[in-house]
Amino acid sequence: MSRTLRIGLLGCGTVGTGILRLLHDNASMIEGRLGGHIEITRIAVRDPKKVRDQVVSPRIVTDDAMNVVRDPQIDIVVEVMGGLEPAGSLLRAALEQGKHVVTANKALLAEKGDELLQKAEAGGVDLYFEAAVAGGIPIIRVLREALASDRIVALRGIVNGTSNYILSRMADDSLEFAEALKAAQEAGYAEADPTLDISGGDAQHKLAILATMAFGAKVHPSEILREGIETITQIDMRFAERFGYVIKSLAIARALPDGALDLRVHPTLVPEGSVLANVSGALNAVEVEGAMVGSCLFSGLGAGALPTATSVVSDIVDVGRNLLINAHGRVPSRSFRGEALRDFPVRDPGEQICRFYLHFSAADEPGVLAKIAGVLGEQKVSIDQMVQEGQGTSDKPVSVVILTHHAPARAVYEALSTIDALKPLIMAPSRAIRIEG
Amino acid sequence: MSRTLRIGLLGCGTVGTGILRLLHDNASMIEGRLGGHIEITRIAVRDPKKVRDQVVSPRIVTDDAMNVVRDPQIDIVVEVMGGLEPAGSLLRAALEQGKHVVTANKALLAEKGDELLQKAEAGGVDLYFEAAVAGGIPIIRVLREALASDRIVALRGIVNGTSNYILSRMADDSLEFAEALKAAQEAGYAEADPTLDISGGDAQHKLAILATMAFGAKVHPSEILREGIETITQIDMRFAERFGYVIKSLAIARALPDGALDLRVHPTLVPEGSVLANVSGALNAVEVEGAMVGSCLFSGLGAGALPTATSVVSDIVDVGRNLLINAHGRVPSRSFRGEALRDFPVRDPGEQICRFYLHFSAADEPGVLAKIAGVLGEQKVSIDQMVQEGQGTSDKPVSVVILTHHAPARAVYEALSTIDALKPLIMAPSRAIRIEG
Repeated sequence: MSRTLRIGLLGCGTVGTGILRLLHDNASMIEGRLGGHIEITRIAVRDPKKVRDQVVSPRIVTDDAMNVVRDPQIDIVVEVMGGLEPAGSLLRAALEQGKHVVTANKALLAEKGDELLQKAEAGGVDLYFEAAVAGGIPIIRVLREALASDRIVALRGIVNGTSNYILSRMADDSLEFAEALKAAQEAGYAEADPTLDISGGDAQHKLAILATMAFGAKVHPSEILREGIETITQIDMRFAERFGYVIKSLAIARALPDGALDLRVHPTLVPEGSVLANVSGALNAVEVEGAMVGSCLFSGLGAGALPTATSVVSDIVDVGRNLLINAHGRVPSRSFRGEALRDFPVRDPGEQICRFYLHFSAADEPGVLAKIAGVLGEQKVSIDQMVQEGQGTSDKPVSVVILTHHAPARAVYEALSTIDALKPLIMAPSRAIRIEG
Repeated sequence: MSRTLRIGLLGCGTVGTGILRLLHDNASMIEGRLGGHIEITRIAVRDPKKVRDQVVSPRIVTDDAMNVVRDPQIDIVVEVMGGLEPAGSLLRAALEQGKHVVTANKALLAEKGDELLQKAEAGGVDLYFEAAVAGGIPIIRVLREALASDRIVALRGIVNGTSNYILSRMADDSLEFAEALKAAQEAGYAEADPTLDISGGDAQHKLAILATMAFGAKVHPSEILREGIETITQIDMRFAERFGYVIKSLAIARALPDGALDLRVHPTLVPEGSVLANVSGALNAVEVEGAMVGSCLFSGLGAGALPTATSVVSDIVDVGRNLLINAHGRVPSRSFRGEALRDFPVRDPGEQICRFYLHFSAADEPGVLAKIAGVLGEQKVSIDQMVQEGQGTSDKPVSVVILTHHAPARAVYEALSTIDALKPLIMAPSRAIRIEG
């Protein structure tokens, strides 16, 4: 039963180095669990001179990744280089050669997951990607295996640590968005160009992968409604708090009764006592609602070299076990939950039904509340609560905040554009934030 | 690749009925994921006349469980009868016959898990038991697979829904323990005899199983320090809140730097902003701390027929997949993380080091605080914070509450017994509750 698994590693940045460290430090434990030996046989990087890890012999490092993928010795290709290309072509080639694949590449999976999973299925090999979503949290495994007996109804996640850190600092330390972003950059939680994180683009990629696993659906990131957190202000934070909510950026996927999927990434008011409201700082969390199992929450570090490397190496162990116990023949792929991916209709964002928090910057004049309420009424958006705050002056507006009952997004946004045209009564663009729970 | 897995079901109470319902309602989805057909071939119950499920033919129901276990047709024995015997003898026989086993029996696993896992290993069969701990939360799978690459440092869990419901009602609705227990019984969350839940005995069983999986340790429930929640009062709830804590009953297992395990089940003050503090009602949650992956939290419904049945059926799918892809030979058991279970020294409860909340019912007399502080000082227990509340009378004490710095439990309890002897200055037994985080 003792056999050697030969790994071809594509990419050796922080995650790749973390993988080498984990395999080295925990070698005996990992090999005990695997029932075999793991060897990093070859490493492909753009510039071989830059790999200076002491446990790596320079002889195994190359700049020819395709050569590694085609090496008949290699059992498992582990890809941590990121990006759509050349990673996509390399993994396609690996799967076609009958190699098992472990990858942390969320952009590639979000864009090409369907094609890659099909190739794995056809080739009878495994394609595992726990590290692609929510770093150290084993959410892919949970969706693939633990909830294999249940029908998933909805999932809601905090899947971008940068946005969550910024919103947490805004809530806890009363920072405005720009200050909190600067703090995130100084703390190393946000990149110099934070666009992908704060715009919701990164969360869109992750939600596409999660929805694929949860519903067996072909979901492309572009089908997901996306709103960033850059428009959230301290005023919104304080009003949310006053109504018993916290503002979080959520990725939401829901199977609607008519068979369509409701898919969105946006800032959201969540009740302050709820578990998601208490996931703070750079943590990630995913709440999964199964028809039978009810609601489960999984949270932990969503990024970082070591949590991500842990997920990659656990995938290697899993794929390795499948491989070792099947030394005698071709095996069915265990990559997916076993069903073929299907096309689902995606609910038009305008028809998504939600409760809304609305903020208006209004002149402090008699009749302004009636005007706002009137426009909402015309669109059949009914009001749950309404408050007005502050003393306005001729050039300083008051804040009017309304929480609505459930309403279609299109009606709400049409009301807002009518209201925003009520100049000089309305002194700045209105804001709408969805409410969950 | 299409094969039939034949199940022998032992027990058909609420969980057993849930399993039948799940397999029936989700049949096509489950079989798609498995790549094979599942058949409930035989069901053993004490009284066959009581099984009236419409999907079950009376011909497959028997009262001879050993006969089911020995039936050569049966591939997987699923045990949901509970209790140590006859379940123990039946599962031993099943494993010896080369049957794979899925069980939800926490008492049996806590008492005999070591022996059963060894038998599974020796026979090359799987013994899966996701449903035995924390119902629908896939914590066993997480420990066995998702964190297979990491060394686990500690775990902290809310694993008894009844206790958590009672403590949540005490905190939220200012009920005293007896009232909250009554409410739990009326809501169906507590049994007529709630001793096993409120004493921490049930949590002891679950922690023994979790520690076995997390550390590869042979842990017997009797080695775990246990304190119940029945001594917690509204006064403690309010003081905890004042200091920024919530009282939860936690099951804690920690690998100490010297190689010993620290194992305990007790009411605990946890910081109010922490994720565990916000796990309320009948929910369960387990926080796992890995050396590399950091801290992860898993929460969900810990009990109930359908969440438990979901875990059992996901185990059946997993074991079934292992079985189907290995139709040609004996397979290594995947039940455990791959290491043999080891004996670990368990830290003596008196030497466990912790911060403590201490409550004293003291006469409202000058010098009483100094006396209490003096006794603690003699035991080298140092004080972090101290408050006194209320106006005492000759027969009504004031509450003196102290939060200590880290101190060995033995020193704290010795100080308490000295202080309790200070009559008439101390008017009721003092209470100590540990603080985590």
